[in-house]
Amino acid sequence: MSKGSILLTGGAGFVGSHTVIEFIQAGYSVVVLDNLVNASMESIKRVEKITGKEIPAVNVDLLNKEALTDLFSKHKFTSVVHFAGLKAVGESCQLPLLYYHTNIGATINLLEVMKSFDVKNMIFSSSATVYGTPQYLPIDEKHPVGGCTNPYGKTKYFIEEILRDLAKAEPDWNIVILRYFNPVGAHESGQIGEDPQGVPNNLMPFISQVAVGKRKELNVYGDDYDTPDGTGVRDYIHVVDLAKGHVAAQTKIETKCGCKVYNLGTGKGYSVIEMAKALEKASGKPVPYKVCPRREGDVGSVYGNADLAKEELGWTATKGLDDMCKDLWRWQSMNPNGFRGDS
Amino acid sequence: MSKGSILLTGGAGFVGSHTVIEFIQAGYSVVVLDNLVNASMESIKRVEKITGKEIPAVNVDLLNKEALTDLFSKHKFTSVVHFAGLKAVGESCQLPLLYYHTNIGATINLLEVMKSFDVKNMIFSSSATVYGTPQYLPIDEKHPVGGCTNPYGKTKYFIEEILRDLAKAEPDWNIVILRYFNPVGAHESGQIGEDPQGVPNNLMPFISQVAVGKRKELNVYGDDYDTPDGTGVRDYIHVVDLAKGHVAAQTKIETKCGCKVYNLGTGKGYSVIEMAKALEKASGKPVPYKVCPRREGDVGSVYGNADLAKEELGWTATKGLDDMCKDLWRWQSMNPNGFRGDS
Repeated sequence: MSKGSILLTGGAGFVGSHTVIEFIQAGYSVVVLDNLVNASMESIKRVEKITGKEIPAVNVDLLNKEALTDLFSKHKFTSVVHFAGLKAVGESCQLPLLYYHTNIGATINLLEVMKSFDVKNMIFSSSATVYGTPQYLPIDEKHPVGGCTNPYGKTKYFIEEILRDLAKAEPDWNIVILRYFNPVGAHESGQIGEDPQGVPNNLMPFISQVAVGKRKELNVYGDDYDTPDGTGVRDYIHVVDLAKGHVAAQTKIETKCGCKVYNLGTGKGYSVIEMAKALEKASGKPVPYKVCPRREGDVGSVYGNADLAKEELGWTATKGLDDMCKDLWRWQSMNPNGFRGDS
Repeated sequence: MSKGSILLTGGAGFVGSHTVIEFIQAGYSVVVLDNLVNASMESIKRVEKITGKEIPAVNVDLLNKEALTDLFSKHKFTSVVHFAGLKAVGESCQLPLLYYHTNIGATINLLEVMKSFDVKNMIFSSSATVYGTPQYLPIDEKHPVGGCTNPYGKTKYFIEEILRDLAKAEPDWNIVILRYFNPVGAHESGQIGEDPQGVPNNLMPFISQVAVGKRKELNVYGDDYDTPDGTGVRDYIHVVDLAKGHVAAQTKIETKCGCKVYNLGTGKGYSVIEMAKALEKASGKPVPYKVCPRREGDVGSVYGNADLAKEELGWTATKGLDDMCKDLWRWQSMNPNGFRGDS
């Protein structure tokens, strides 16, 4: 007997695919929606192998309201976990209209269709980027938001505001906003993981591509920050821990929680060089690096306080740096070309 | 010989219709687009009488991208003045999704169509509401933005951010964001003016409906603010002054100005009771009032500094409180039922 039916938008992506597993293992049934702009249904085939369950997955774009309405007319969803969205910071600065249209338009369509089918439970995939430059560390949920400087981050912030206003206007909505710190690692099976197209935007996929021999060296942007080794410090969280946070959020939603916001991070910061060394250790491969000038907009340290999620969701990250690197390396070395197979 | 062709979205509305006149009188040709949700084409018929020009006006919704594309394929616009949008603060709190969908969706559609036709000049109708609760007075353009507490105000702020990001990504755009203080008054002909449907949301239409006998008394929300008479102080600007500010902005755009932001106000604040007394004087009618509790979210004083518009646009408000009230009263007494005629 299923505990409920969860729609995961962007469910074929990195965080989405790992979250599908956790919902299935917690006794929910799931439906995956993805427009495959930045993902592959191969991830879902592998999740089917890992879980032994058949997973209904549809290639639907949230901007196609008709197709979305059709999907809702065929299923009775308990909740929607909304991952879908464009997410490359640099690209968002080049193509702001595309980002605003896609991310905000998709979310408004989704909320309108949800409302019309009386599905009023949502878990939203937000980001610590909504905090902008930290005013204090560790960042807790009371930290001011809205200071982000790129369109990607602003879409996350704007969507948060839309969700808060909706929950205020219509108190029968239950919405949990999860602010992710930096998701890394992969499922311990080595079958699914992060699969960036082209040059990775994020640090750890880049490092693992250096270790596997696909890239020559790591560019370290700035080694003169006010951090122990001078390189930027971030709060990395294992994607499986992060995925479990969504199940905990769903449990909270079932208590009719209204609108809530939680940081999901470990509360611990590691520097770029610490991450490179940790992956060297896990992989047994060298990760050469070159120090480059700081990038505009980067800050020295960002890490969060996730005590509220511990108190109110009973959730806490359990996997440390070694797990993150060991699992990432397993995925990377078993799938040097990601889901695209040998090439 | 026309100085250029200006598309005015929401051009049949209060500020829009007055701005049409000023553009025509400055030698531009105009096209009015309005979905008539909160306006009537009667205003444009009257503008035709006032100006002696025939004004192309289309009933098109900006959410209808096909119709919008069709319009752009028939005209070669120089600039777009973007007034269109839902604007009732209270309603926006009740129906946030409607406001976000309509105001942001319409703007993104408009920008995409403009871009596809290589029309990259826009004047945007923003509001001093983007400043939120004033941190200092008078508010200049350097005052922090984004502190607004209602979805209407947030749509203005979000659109400003979208415009700034667009201009940053594509430097061939010229965008002037005009932050209005409180537009009042009417054209001196008495032929056009503010025509709210139902109970007016704004102070002056309410006061003038009391003076004309359509409403019993004015509700004054709070008389214990830290202001000279205890009632709320705002920066009222004559709508014809405001309209002229758009023509000044267009002149600025013609210098390839990039993205600029200007306050349009008088820099002077008047209290609720001062406004009521001024309309009593202009109309010769009594405006009885009743003091009620403060409204949540209201602040004592809001007024702006419009020096930057003076310096960079050569624009300054020239009409004072007596003009505002005299012109409002002429419109109200000649058109007690607005554009709907006798009823």
